[in-house]
Amino acid sequence: MGGDEVKLLGAWPSPYVLRARIALNIKSVDYEFLEEKFGSKSDLLLKSNPVHKKIPVLIHGDRPICESLIIVEYIDQVWPSGPSLLPSDPYDRAIARFWAAYADQWFSSAIVVLYEDDGEKAAAAVEEAKKGLSLFDEALVKCSKGQNFFGGDRMGYLDIALGSLLSWIKVIQILRNVSLIDESTTPNLFRWAPRFAADHAVKDVFPDIHKHLEFAKFLVARTKAQP
Amino acid sequence: MGGDEVKLLGAWPSPYVLRARIALNIKSVDYEFLEEKFGSKSDLLLKSNPVHKKIPVLIHGDRPICESLIIVEYIDQVWPSGPSLLPSDPYDRAIARFWAAYADQWFSSAIVVLYEDDGEKAAAAVEEAKKGLSLFDEALVKCSKGQNFFGGDRMGYLDIALGSLLSWIKVIQILRNVSLIDESTTPNLFRWAPRFAADHAVKDVFPDIHKHLEFAKFLVARTKAQP
Repeated sequence: MGGDEVKLLGAWPSPYVLRARIALNIKSVDYEFLEEKFGSKSDLLLKSNPVHKKIPVLIHGDRPICESLIIVEYIDQVWPSGPSLLPSDPYDRAIARFWAAYADQWFSSAIVVLYEDDGEKAAAAVEEAKKGLSLFDEALVKCSKGQNFFGGDRMGYLDIALGSLLSWIKVIQILRNVSLIDESTTPNLFRWAPRFAADHAVKDVFPDIHKHLEFAKFLVARTKAQP
Repeated sequence: MGGDEVKLLGAWPSPYVLRARIALNIKSVDYEFLEEKFGSKSDLLLKSNPVHKKIPVLIHGDRPICESLIIVEYIDQVWPSGPSLLPSDPYDRAIARFWAAYADQWFSSAIVVLYEDDGEKAAAAVEEAKKGLSLFDEALVKCSKGQNFFGGDRMGYLDIALGSLLSWIKVIQILRNVSLIDESTTPNLFRWAPRFAADHAVKDVFPDIHKHLEFAKFLVARTKAQP
């Protein structure tokens, strides 16, 4: 009955699915990636996450685990032999969790920039998004303690939580011709972002920008076509 | 600076503040409760939680920790000598975190019932709220493994996360004359709720129902008076 097999229900453009993939890669866990088709939900997904019916779902043996940040914490605890994802110090851990939760909140506001047609509203959403990113920029200085990642000398929980959004941030920047992360306003994030994308646990699962742009255009068109 | 002193910035009607108080009580941690005045924010709050400017904030020594569920996890890790709040098994832990996150989501929808004047919309909100509670009722059976609490034989993280909402649930039931938790639809929650409220870690900090009803009436009137 499933044993210790690991499966991940997901889809490549989902930043939340990306979190689970990166965490599994950091821990060198072999897993089967079961791609959900866009616009439909598999029986396995409906059975595994009956409350939210959303990806990602990690299935370990025959037990489903839902919600991306909870999955990352689960992976960290179940495979302790790999590099730790969460800081060991309780205060550092609370701070990482705080900013990870804020990353989710930030993204659900920032994605509005992609869809907003009203020029004034779009400009306001960009300003809000930039304000949030400058908070992350400061947080990076504090959390990294002068090293390369939020997690210090290597990628950790908060790197995964925020870094998983980078491809979408790039897509918004290109399609809406705005600057969100740049050298002048978020210098630390600006240096961190390419380090994140180039990390060995990330580079093979990070969305290709051309493919991602096409997907985003399709999504925006589809959303606007809906009544 | 501050040593190991524990302070909690809060207000008695906040279910999120209640979570921190219960967790501190379970761990027998002495703390100073700094009550925020309704409608204003102290300088200490603004300094301690500049991102959200919200209670609760736990201040341990001179370090602030924000967000109720993060505070509960912090308390669990920093005072390990008291009873554990989170399950030790990674899967049980993920499940507890899943339902705790759902409790927050559930409450932000359910509170609509208190304010909604449109009869049809109010009825729909009640139905949604009841559906959510029946999920918690099933979760209680699974998580408790036949014992008294979500945490098993004693209160744990998920008891705190959901139980903190019980006083507001009661207020909604009374003021809107609806039944949310009852013997027929949520028999397990129905038996669990008074156990929770009577627990020695809860009973002294659980809001008095008369005081809570007055506060809720004031809040509804104030919200409706706003343009």
